[in-house]
Amino acid sequence: MPNKKYVYYFGAGDADGGAHLKNLLGGKGSNLAEMVNLKIPVPPGFTISTEVCTEYYENNQNYPDGLHEQVIMNLKKVEEVMGRRFGDVEKPLLISIRSGARVSMPGMMDTVLNLGLNDSTIKGLISETNNERLAYDSYRRFVQMYADVVLGIDKDILEHILEDKKEEKGVTLDTELTADDLHDLVTKFKAKIKEITNKDFPEDPIEQLWGGIDAVFGSWDNKRAQTYRRLNKIPDDWGTAVNVQTMVYGNMGDDSATGVAFTRDPATGENRFFGEFLVNAQGEDVVAGIRTPQPINIAGKNDSKLPSLEEVMPVCYKELEEIYLKLEKHYKDMQDIEFTIQQGKLWMLQTRTGKRTINSALKIAVDMVKEGLITKDEAILRIDPARLDQLLHPMIDPKVKRDVIAKGLPASPGAASGKVVFTADEAEEMAGKEEKVILVRIETSPEDIHGMNAAQGILTARGGMTSHAAVVARGMGKCCVAGCGELKIDYDKEVMEVNGNTIRKGDLITIDGSLGEIMLGDLPTIEPEIGGDMAVLMEWADAVRRMKVRANADTPHDAKVAREFGAQGIGLCRTEHMFFDGDRIDAVREMILADDTEGRKKALAKILPMQKSDFIGIFKEMKDLPVTIRLLDPPLHEFLPHSEEDIKALSEKIGVSAEKLTAKVISLKEFNPMLGHRGCRLGVTFPEIYDMQVQAIMEAACELSKEGYSIIPEIMIPLVGLVNELKVTRESAERVCKEVIKKTGEKIEYLIGTMIELPRAALTADKIGTVADFFSFGTNDLTQTTYGLSRDDAGTFLPKYIELGMMKEDPFVALDQEGVGILVEMGVTKGRSVKPNLKVGICGEHGGEPSSVEFCHNIGLDYVSCSPFRVPIARLSAAHAKLKEET
Amino acid sequence: MPNKKYVYYFGAGDADGGAHLKNLLGGKGSNLAEMVNLKIPVPPGFTISTEVCTEYYENNQNYPDGLHEQVIMNLKKVEEVMGRRFGDVEKPLLISIRSGARVSMPGMMDTVLNLGLNDSTIKGLISETNNERLAYDSYRRFVQMYADVVLGIDKDILEHILEDKKEEKGVTLDTELTADDLHDLVTKFKAKIKEITNKDFPEDPIEQLWGGIDAVFGSWDNKRAQTYRRLNKIPDDWGTAVNVQTMVYGNMGDDSATGVAFTRDPATGENRFFGEFLVNAQGEDVVAGIRTPQPINIAGKNDSKLPSLEEVMPVCYKELEEIYLKLEKHYKDMQDIEFTIQQGKLWMLQTRTGKRTINSALKIAVDMVKEGLITKDEAILRIDPARLDQLLHPMIDPKVKRDVIAKGLPASPGAASGKVVFTADEAEEMAGKEEKVILVRIETSPEDIHGMNAAQGILTARGGMTSHAAVVARGMGKCCVAGCGELKIDYDKEVMEVNGNTIRKGDLITIDGSLGEIMLGDLPTIEPEIGGDMAVLMEWADAVRRMKVRANADTPHDAKVAREFGAQGIGLCRTEHMFFDGDRIDAVREMILADDTEGRKKALAKILPMQKSDFIGIFKEMKDLPVTIRLLDPPLHEFLPHSEEDIKALSEKIGVSAEKLTAKVISLKEFNPMLGHRGCRLGVTFPEIYDMQVQAIMEAACELSKEGYSIIPEIMIPLVGLVNELKVTRESAERVCKEVIKKTGEKIEYLIGTMIELPRAALTADKIGTVADFFSFGTNDLTQTTYGLSRDDAGTFLPKYIELGMMKEDPFVALDQEGVGILVEMGVTKGRSVKPNLKVGICGEHGGEPSSVEFCHNIGLDYVSCSPFRVPIARLSAAHAKLKEET
Repeated sequence: MPNKKYVYYFGAGDADGGAHLKNLLGGKGSNLAEMVNLKIPVPPGFTISTEVCTEYYENNQNYPDGLHEQVIMNLKKVEEVMGRRFGDVEKPLLISIRSGARVSMPGMMDTVLNLGLNDSTIKGLISETNNERLAYDSYRRFVQMYADVVLGIDKDILEHILEDKKEEKGVTLDTELTADDLHDLVTKFKAKIKEITNKDFPEDPIEQLWGGIDAVFGSWDNKRAQTYRRLNKIPDDWGTAVNVQTMVYGNMGDDSATGVAFTRDPATGENRFFGEFLVNAQGEDVVAGIRTPQPINIAGKNDSKLPSLEEVMPVCYKELEEIYLKLEKHYKDMQDIEFTIQQGKLWMLQTRTGKRTINSALKIAVDMVKEGLITKDEAILRIDPARLDQLLHPMIDPKVKRDVIAKGLPASPGAASGKVVFTADEAEEMAGKEEKVILVRIETSPEDIHGMNAAQGILTARGGMTSHAAVVARGMGKCCVAGCGELKIDYDKEVMEVNGNTIRKGDLITIDGSLGEIMLGDLPTIEPEIGGDMAVLMEWADAVRRMKVRANADTPHDAKVAREFGAQGIGLCRTEHMFFDGDRIDAVREMILADDTEGRKKALAKILPMQKSDFIGIFKEMKDLPVTIRLLDPPLHEFLPHSEEDIKALSEKIGVSAEKLTAKVISLKEFNPMLGHRGCRLGVTFPEIYDMQVQAIMEAACELSKEGYSIIPEIMIPLVGLVNELKVTRESAERVCKEVIKKTGEKIEYLIGTMIELPRAALTADKIGTVADFFSFGTNDLTQTTYGLSRDDAGTFLPKYIELGMMKEDPFVALDQEGVGILVEMGVTKGRSVKPNLKVGICGEHGGEPSSVEFCHNIGLDYVSCSPFRVPIARLSAAHAKLKEET
Repeated sequence: MPNKKYVYYFGAGDADGGAHLKNLLGGKGSNLAEMVNLKIPVPPGFTISTEVCTEYYENNQNYPDGLHEQVIMNLKKVEEVMGRRFGDVEKPLLISIRSGARVSMPGMMDTVLNLGLNDSTIKGLISETNNERLAYDSYRRFVQMYADVVLGIDKDILEHILEDKKEEKGVTLDTELTADDLHDLVTKFKAKIKEITNKDFPEDPIEQLWGGIDAVFGSWDNKRAQTYRRLNKIPDDWGTAVNVQTMVYGNMGDDSATGVAFTRDPATGENRFFGEFLVNAQGEDVVAGIRTPQPINIAGKNDSKLPSLEEVMPVCYKELEEIYLKLEKHYKDMQDIEFTIQQGKLWMLQTRTGKRTINSALKIAVDMVKEGLITKDEAILRIDPARLDQLLHPMIDPKVKRDVIAKGLPASPGAASGKVVFTADEAEEMAGKEEKVILVRIETSPEDIHGMNAAQGILTARGGMTSHAAVVARGMGKCCVAGCGELKIDYDKEVMEVNGNTIRKGDLITIDGSLGEIMLGDLPTIEPEIGGDMAVLMEWADAVRRMKVRANADTPHDAKVAREFGAQGIGLCRTEHMFFDGDRIDAVREMILADDTEGRKKALAKILPMQKSDFIGIFKEMKDLPVTIRLLDPPLHEFLPHSEEDIKALSEKIGVSAEKLTAKVISLKEFNPMLGHRGCRLGVTFPEIYDMQVQAIMEAACELSKEGYSIIPEIMIPLVGLVNELKVTRESAERVCKEVIKKTGEKIEYLIGTMIELPRAALTADKIGTVADFFSFGTNDLTQTTYGLSRDDAGTFLPKYIELGMMKEDPFVALDQEGVGILVEMGVTKGRSVKPNLKVGICGEHGGEPSSVEFCHNIGLDYVSCSPFRVPIARLSAAHAKLKEET
C-alpha cells in the first residue's frame, strides 16, 4: 500500500492544495496554495499536513512512514522551480519553517527563518546579494532563532552577547553593527551554543530542516500553545501543519520592504485598504512592533510624517492593490495579508481572514450584504454572538471631564479602569482576588497571555495596531491602548512616568481603547445602546430566529433596560430582592419571628402593598409582554442577621430580645442551605407567604387591567421536585387568583408553572407536566445538584480542574450538555409527552451564553431568558442556532 | 346496558363470590363467600364491592346507578333464606354492617350491629328470644353504635347517660342493669339524639341500612383509617367493601358464646388450636378486651382457672375443630377465625390469614413445608423481610438479673426500655425529641395508633393476646406486654402503682414482650443470632436468590458481625472513621494544617501504618471475601475543631497558634459542605492523601497474601461526577498499586471502581464506565442531590410532606424508584453499554430495605450492601425478588 499523502506542494502557479483543505493544511498552508491557484505570486514551498502532527503525538512523537521521502521530493521540486539548491555554495536555497494550525494562533507557535545558511552557503548569499551585512545579519538571526526554537537555549544568553557587542562598539541599535560585527557574533553564538549543548551547531542544511520541523510540531504542545487553546476552546487533537517555504527578503536595500495589511480597516470596518510596512526590513520587525511602521497608502497617513508605500514603491503598491481586491472578492471576507518586496518584486506570504473588532465586524458584515458580496444569513453567521458582549459593556461617561495624561493607539475598543500592574503574573494573581487590574507592559509577548486574559485592559508603550498586544486584545475583547511612547516604564521599581505623572503599581488608571486615551483614577461609565450596524444585524437575526428571548429582571429599571435591548418579556423576576428593600425588611423579619400563622399573616399584610407596587412598576415597563414571577425562593435565615452585633442592633430596633432572636437564627441554621428549607418547601410549610405574593401579583395585574394594560402574569413555583409540591402550591395560588379576580371583577388570565431546577423534577417531568402551565429550567441550581457542586464552594478545586484540563469549560458559564443537558432534554421530552404544547424556557445564566442558547434551540425550547445586557447575544445566538440547523 | 354487578350474595351453601375475589369483596367478604362454598355455616348476607367505594369517592360521594336495586334484591334473598323480614314485627331480620378492605385494618373501620331494631321489631325479638333483657341490651347497643358511627355523636354523651343510670341503680357493671333499665336507656338515648340532631332517631330499617352503608364507606376516609393506610402503605384507592350480614347472638344465654381463635399459636407458631371465648357475650366483648376471656380448649388452659369451650360446649367445640382444620388445609396458612354460638348452633363469622409474630411466621412457614402443605418457595414468600428486623434487634442480656415487678401477657416479642408515658400524644412528642418511650395504657384503641408507632414498646393493663394492643403491636413489630392486671394506672396524676412500686411519667422501665415481663430501669441487651427456623429459611432463600449480599462495615468487629449474618463481602468500608481513632486524629490534623505537599506527606507517613493495620484487621475477618474500600470522602474541616474552646485546646496540644488554627478552620468553611470540597475532589487536589490510603490497602493485602490469604481489594473512588476525576485518581492509584506490588513481590489483583452518587455520574455512566472496574451506587447522596434535599436539614419540612401525604415514603428509607431509581437504572444501562460485565452494586442504606432490594434485583445489580444487622433482610428480600420475577 502506498503511503498517505502527507506533503502538499505550492508555487509558481501550481498547488496540490487549496482553501478547501484548511483542516488538513492549516490556515496558512491552505491559503498559500489558494493564492497560487489564484495566480498570485507566492514564494514556492510545501506544507506538511496536520495529520502528521496528530499521528506524531499518537505515535509517541514518531513521524509516519513515508514522510521523510515526501519532504525530500518536494524540496527537490522547490529547488527546480527556484533554480537553487539547498546547501549550494553558489545559489543556496534558503527557507523558512512556520507552523500553521486550522485556526490562527498568533505568536503561539514557533518559527525559524533563513534556514539553510551555514559557513559555506553564506558565501553564495553574499555574492548573490552583494550585501555582506545583510547576509551576516540573516545568518546571526538564523542562529539566534534556531538556538531558541530548536535547541531550546534561553534567548537571553545570545541576546546578552549581542548587547555586549553593541556596548563594545559603542552603538545602541542592531542596525548600527557592521558585517564584521555580525560575522563575529555568529562565531561567538556558535561557540556559546557548543559550550551549552556540547555539540557543534548543525552545518548540514537537511539536519537543520528536520530540526526546524521537529521544533514546530513540538511547539504544538508547549505551555503557551496549550494556554491559547484552552482560552480559545481549540481541541488538542486538531494539530498544526508545517509550512516550508523559500525565503524572500524585505531587507535587501531600499527597493525591498515588508508589510502587513488589512483589506478593510480592522478597527472600524471602514472599506479602505489599511496597512503598515517597513522599508529594508524583515517581516518579524513589523509584527514585533519594535520600529514604528509606515502607512501603506496616502489615505492611511493621517498625521504620519512617514512616506507611504503608495508613494515610495507605486508599482508594487498598485500590484498589491489588485491582489487585495482579488483576495477579498474571492474569500468574500476581509483579509489580513503579509507581503514582502524583494528588490522590487512583490511576494505574498500570507492571506487569512482578518481579526477585527466587533464593531468593525458588524460594519463589514452589513456593508458586504449591501455590496452584494454575502447574504443576510451569512452576515448573521459572521458575527460571533459572544463578542457582542464588548459592545454591551459600560463606556466612559461622555459628560465626565477627561484629564488625558497620554495618548496611544486605539488598539482594541471599550474602556476599563483598574489598578496598574506590570507583570502578567501579578495581573493573574490580583484578578484572582477579585481586583480589577490594567496590565501595563513595554510590549507584550505570547508569555503574557494569561495576564492579558486576567486584566480588564492592556496598555503598552511600544507596538502598532498590528502588534501582539493589539491583535490578542481584540481577539479577547479586552480594551487595549498600544504604542503609547510617552510611558517610561521601570519594571524593577514598579513605576511609570507619564508626562510628569508618577504612577506606581496599584494606582488606579482608566484607559479608553476606542480613543487610545489614558486617564488617572477610576472614571464613571455609561451603559451602551444598540444602534447602527448592530441594530441592522439584530433586525436580520430577529427575522431568522425561532426562539424568543426574554430577560431576567427584578426591578422596573432592569425591565426597561431589557426592553431596550430587545427582550420579549421577563423570564425570571425574582421576588426576594424586594424583601430586602428599605423598610420592608423589618416586616419580613417580623414575619419570620412570628410564632404562629396569625403572626405571620399580620406581618405579611404589611408587605403586601409594597410587593404589589413592585409588580405594578414592572408590569408597566413590560406593557403587553409576558412577565414570569418566581415566588419566594431563598431560605428564611437569609433575611436575618447572623453576627452578634447585628443581632443586638436588630433586637434594639424591633424590641425582640437578643436571646429570642439568636434562638430563631440558630433554629433556622442549615447545614446545606442550598438543599434546605427553601423554594416551594416554604410555600408548603408557610402557605401564607405564597398567598400574599400571589395576591400582590394578581391585584397589580387587575389594577393595570382596569387601566387598559393587557397583563398575563406567569406565576412560577421554584424548587419543585415532587409533583405534589406543585399540586399543593398551585391549588393555593389558584384559590387566591380566583379570589382577587372575583373581588376586582377583572377578567385576567394567568399561568402557573414551575422551575425545573432539581434532577428529580427533570426525571419526573411527565408527572409535573400534568399540573404545570409552563416549565422554566433553572440551570444554575440544576447544575449545582447534578454535579453535586456548590457554586460558592467550588473555588477550592474547580480552578485546578480547569488547569488540569479535566473540564472543558466551567459548567456555570456554558451549559454542561453531556451531563446537565441530558436532564434538560429529558425534562422537555417528558413534559411535552403529557402536554404537547407545554411552554418551556430557560432562566439560568446559561440563557445568554451562545453554545447554551444553541442547545436550547436544538431541544425545542420556546425561549431563553438572560440578564438584560446579554439579550442581544441571546438574540443573535438564537438566529445562529436556527441557521445552523438548516445547513 | 345493564348495570355492573356491585352486590354479591352469600349464605346457605350458595355464594356469588369466593376467596379469589378478595380485591373486589375485601378480605372479610371474599372469605365469608369462600366459607359458604366450603359448606361451613355462615350467617347469610351480601357484600357491596370495593368498586362502589372507589366510584363513590370518584363521583363526589354518590353511589353508582343500580346499587340501590341490587342491595334491595339481595336483602330479599336473605329474608327468604332466613324466613324473616327486615322490619317485621314478628320475625324481624336483624343485620350487621361491617367494613372489609382488601387487607385487614383491625379496628380502623366502623361497624354497626343489630341494625333493623326499632320500637316495633323489638317486640319480635323479645317474643322470639323470650329474653327481654337481651333484646333491650341489643337495642341500646344498636342506638349507641348508630349514634356514634352513623350520626357522628360524641360517644361520651350517651356513655354518660349509661353511667348515670348505673349510678342511679347503684350498680357497677352493664350486665347488672335490668331490661327496664335498658328500655329506659333507649328512650333517654333517643331523646338526647333528637336534642342534638334535631331529628328523630330513624325507625325505618331501610333508612337505618343506608345510614350504616354510608357510614362504612365514609369511614374509609376518616383520620384513623388514613393514618393506618399511611403507616401500612395501603393505597387510598383500594377502597373498602361493605358486608351486610344476618345477626347471630352469642349472648342468648349460657348455651350461647362468642370467640376468636387461631389455627396455630400466633405468638410461637406452635401447631396447636389456640383461642379465647366468652359465654353469653357479643363478639365485640372479646376483641375489646374488657372481660378476661376463657381458653378455647383444655390444652390452652395453662394456669387459667376458667373452663374451656372444649369443656362447656364439647359438641360445638368438635365442630369448630373440624372447621378450623378444613380452613387451614384449604387456605394452606394459619387462619384467624371468629365464631358465635347462638343457642347451641355454631356460626362462623370470619376467617382470615392470621397475623403472627415473625418468630411464629418462620416456624409456621418451615413447619408447613415439612408438613407438605406448601413449597419452600412459598415459605420464603410468606416471610415479610422487613419483619425479620424484630429478630435482629437487641434482647435483654440473659446474664442480667431481672427484678420482675409484674407480669402480663407476652403479646408481641422483643424487649424495649424507655421512659413511661401515658398518652399517645406524649409518646409521639417525646419520640420526636429522640427520647425512647414506653406507652402505658389501661387498654389501647385505634386512637392510640400514632403513639404506639412512636413508642419503643407498649404495656397495657387490660386485654388479651387478641386485644387491640396485641394485634397492632405485632403488626408493627413493636414489643408489647398486654393485660397486666397488676398495674394501677392513674392518668390524671400520671403515675402507676405496681405491686408497691410507684412509677411516674418519665421513669425508665424495661419490658420483655417475649416473656411478658416488666422491670424497672434500663436493662442491658445483647445482639441476636440467626438460628432455628430462621436459619433454615435463610438457607432456602440463599439457594434461590441471584444477587449477592454484602455489608457496610468499617471495623473488624462490624466485619465479624456481618459475616455471622451471612454477608458475602464488604460493599462499603469507609475510611474516614479510622481517621478519628485515638492518636491518629493528631496526625490527620497535622496533615490538614500543613502548608505544602511535603508537610502533608510527612503527616500522612504517620497515618500510613495505622491505616494499614486497620485494613489487615478487616481483611482477616473477611478472609477470601471481597472488600470494597472507599477512599477518604468527607471534607477536611470535619476533622478540625470548630468552637473557640476546642480550637484553644488543640492549639495548646499541638503547639500551633490559635490564630493559625482559626484561620485554617475559616478557610475550610463551606456554605454547602455536602456539595463542597470532598470525595475525589480531595483526591485530585491533594493526591498524596489517596496515595497513602492506596499504599496502606495494598501493603495490607500483600502482607496477608504472604500468609496465604487470597485478597482482592476493591478500591473505590467517591463522588465522581466527571470521567476525568476517575481517570486522574485512578492513574495515581494504579501507580501506587504497582509500586507496592513491585516492592513486595506479591502478585495481587485489585479493582479500581467508583461510587455513583451524583446525578451526573449516572447520566454519564457510559463515559465513567470506560475507566471503572465496578460501580457502587451511593444512594444516600444520590437521593440528596437528585431531590436537592439535605438529609440533615429536611427535618423542617419532610414530616409535613409525609403528614400531607405528599410523599408515599421517606426517600432516605425506601429508594425513590420513580425519581432516583431512573438515574440508578440509567447508570447501570449506560455503564454496561460500554462494559457488559461491569460489576454493579449498591451501598446506600437502601441496600437493606426490601422494596429497594427488589428494585436492585430487577435492574440487574450484582449485589446489595447494607448494615450488618440488615443482611438477613437483604438476603430474604433478594430471594423474594427472584421468586417474584419468576411468577
